[in-house]
Amino acid sequence: MDFIKTPVKGMPEQLPQDMILREFVLNKIKVNYGKYGFLLIETPAVEHIENLTNKQGGENEQLIFKILKRGEKLKKETTLDNISDSGLRYDLTVPLARFYSNNAQHLPMPFKAFQIGNVWRADNPQKGRLRQFMQCDIDIIGDRTKIAEIDLITATVDMLSELGLGKCTVRVNDRRILKQMALNCNFNPEQLSPIFVILDKYDKIGVEGVKNKLMSLGMSENNVDKYCGYLKTYDKTLSCKDFFAKEDNSMDAQIVENLEDIINITKNLVKDKGNVIFDPTLVRGMGYYTGPIFEIELNSYHLSIAGGGRYDKMIGKYMGHDVPACGFSIGLERIMSIIKEKQKALGLEGAGVSYLVDKDTKREKIEEIFNQAAKLREDDTRVSVSTKIKNIGRQREELKKQGYGKIIDTYEWER
Amino acid sequence: MDFIKTPVKGMPEQLPQDMILREFVLNKIKVNYGKYGFLLIETPAVEHIENLTNKQGGENEQLIFKILKRGEKLKKETTLDNISDSGLRYDLTVPLARFYSNNAQHLPMPFKAFQIGNVWRADNPQKGRLRQFMQCDIDIIGDRTKIAEIDLITATVDMLSELGLGKCTVRVNDRRILKQMALNCNFNPEQLSPIFVILDKYDKIGVEGVKNKLMSLGMSENNVDKYCGYLKTYDKTLSCKDFFAKEDNSMDAQIVENLEDIINITKNLVKDKGNVIFDPTLVRGMGYYTGPIFEIELNSYHLSIAGGGRYDKMIGKYMGHDVPACGFSIGLERIMSIIKEKQKALGLEGAGVSYLVDKDTKREKIEEIFNQAAKLREDDTRVSVSTKIKNIGRQREELKKQGYGKIIDTYEWER
Repeated sequence: MDFIKTPVKGMPEQLPQDMILREFVLNKIKVNYGKYGFLLIETPAVEHIENLTNKQGGENEQLIFKILKRGEKLKKETTLDNISDSGLRYDLTVPLARFYSNNAQHLPMPFKAFQIGNVWRADNPQKGRLRQFMQCDIDIIGDRTKIAEIDLITATVDMLSELGLGKCTVRVNDRRILKQMALNCNFNPEQLSPIFVILDKYDKIGVEGVKNKLMSLGMSENNVDKYCGYLKTYDKTLSCKDFFAKEDNSMDAQIVENLEDIINITKNLVKDKGNVIFDPTLVRGMGYYTGPIFEIELNSYHLSIAGGGRYDKMIGKYMGHDVPACGFSIGLERIMSIIKEKQKALGLEGAGVSYLVDKDTKREKIEEIFNQAAKLREDDTRVSVSTKIKNIGRQREELKKQGYGKIIDTYEWER
Repeated sequence: MDFIKTPVKGMPEQLPQDMILREFVLNKIKVNYGKYGFLLIETPAVEHIENLTNKQGGENEQLIFKILKRGEKLKKETTLDNISDSGLRYDLTVPLARFYSNNAQHLPMPFKAFQIGNVWRADNPQKGRLRQFMQCDIDIIGDRTKIAEIDLITATVDMLSELGLGKCTVRVNDRRILKQMALNCNFNPEQLSPIFVILDKYDKIGVEGVKNKLMSLGMSENNVDKYCGYLKTYDKTLSCKDFFAKEDNSMDAQIVENLEDIINITKNLVKDKGNVIFDPTLVRGMGYYTGPIFEIELNSYHLSIAGGGRYDKMIGKYMGHDVPACGFSIGLERIMSIIKEKQKALGLEGAGVSYLVDKDTKREKIEEIFNQAAKLREDDTRVSVSTKIKNIGRQREELKKQGYGKIIDTYEWER
């Protein structure tokens, strides 16, 4: 027997009880983002390999599921580089940029896009990460002002609050600040990338850990000391302006002021739904960010649940001229698992009606049963007609679990 | 510039106005099938190559998008056969059979499954066929009686009627009848497959066309004449019983009676929503069908829109013991294009409110605008805040098109 029962490694299946929750959550998200005027679109799962491997996606480009060219014969000159001309998307941002450049003339300006879709990454399943997972993105294309960031952050905090996930913390930084801070410590531009990979672990390893790891890369002790000196002065209550005023760490005033505005305005707007703070250690992995970046943590779970930022240079690579863009992406699987924990009791209401039919029931009676079921459905009742199985006890129990409060055994009913 | 603006060949994109329609249609389908007690599940897009290439899927197995093994280096012994270990699913039935065998202990019995998902087939795009398209399947697993067929057919006709697609015709046949009829004409069992490929074209080429094509395959004239003689006696008003009574074409009485019951009961149940007829020329391509098969046409469009049948032997290939199963699959793209034609006027309601913000608006005022928007959203109003663009005329027009009946220019509003 060559048939394989288990799913492909890292690819999830959704059982009926999980789908009820997923649909509930997805509907809430759609209603909430819809209220903010974001417009749902869809892009295909399969993308050109050229668009996926163009140094925009950071380390995700190592994780692409590549698809074999159609009609390709394996020849001597075939290599792993040219045997594939497409792949499964690893995020929704790259397809969105392509979509926008292809359809701009049919889209409003600015364009507030909203996507829900699966993405695929061949991540190590040992980490417990899925290889197919659902993302939910909102993006504003064509707005270079802070209005975009404010709209995205408030809409997302609002949505998380609607889902009953409790208070959250939005951490905000700016890619230009991140760079300038390192350059101010006399690091070279080529050293930035490995520095940020290390800084990204600050949450777990602290300043000392960052210092050790930077030193072990052979970076100058002077520079490392200066850099970690700045990091030491950071605390979560400090504003962006005060952080840079405090230290001799010159920063473009306009960039700082823009970030200050985003933080202060959104902080006032989200009120008791969450907090918004400046965090100079926030990195965000994707190569395409150019300005403000942000990430949301749920306070009760210490889980990063959403992230995003501004990417003003990406669409230009498709269109030939730059179009500003900013987006926020939430990972649905983490939200699902939290809500599942919280609402284990959530089930279908018990208002359903189930007819059980004997396998030797006569034609006329079958017709009568289906007719009764149809009448009940007219009043929006959920009605299931099923053949009786041998283990009638198990069948009744399962029907009750599915919310069928009324189970009609049509054999008894005949008498 | 290596970035490609257009989507991969045959892969569709959905613009906002198309998505509004899709969501509307999908919701109707979910509500309708939900009322019948079908339970939504999800299976991954990626499936084991072994499960996709096991002679169950007919010609679809030639159309698989294969995915490169991860971490595979191209070696001398690498061939196109072993360079891929998974592929994109070409239907929802193969993944369902695997899903059921993997999760049977968590599922009710009988299990009424409901799936909505994309499938991928590398069909010739010249035919105007998409290479990614959405299917919507309902299946009943664990019921070997006609209750399953009756439930599936009535639920699907009901759903099409709910969508306002007008009357439909359900054509019904049985794989065993199809086979027996050919064997009765003295064809060999090995000849059945090419005969059915030709019979499948009966709608377009008629009896004479079928005869010519069978002859050109070198089949015996006697047999072909007998076969086409039967086909000539068929008309759409003839019942299955009468068709076989009329000619000397012996058929298992139980199979005929079962099909008669399915046809007559569903005909009475769907009433004026459609008609159900016996059609001995209905073939259905998939290799996995074992009993009754059916297809639905919309009367006003002469378009086949849904098809299905019984496949009692497929799940056994995963589980080791047979489990009866029967399913109905509708193609969403055809339904969408029909409804799009019918409802060109369908748009968003004009109840939305849009705030236009100047790019130099002060912080306090931005906060006030977002606060007002938030208040309106509390009453379920859709509210969009956007930065004003230079071409304010175009922007206003587009906002109106998106259903924003009220457009507030916050610059004027300040005065």
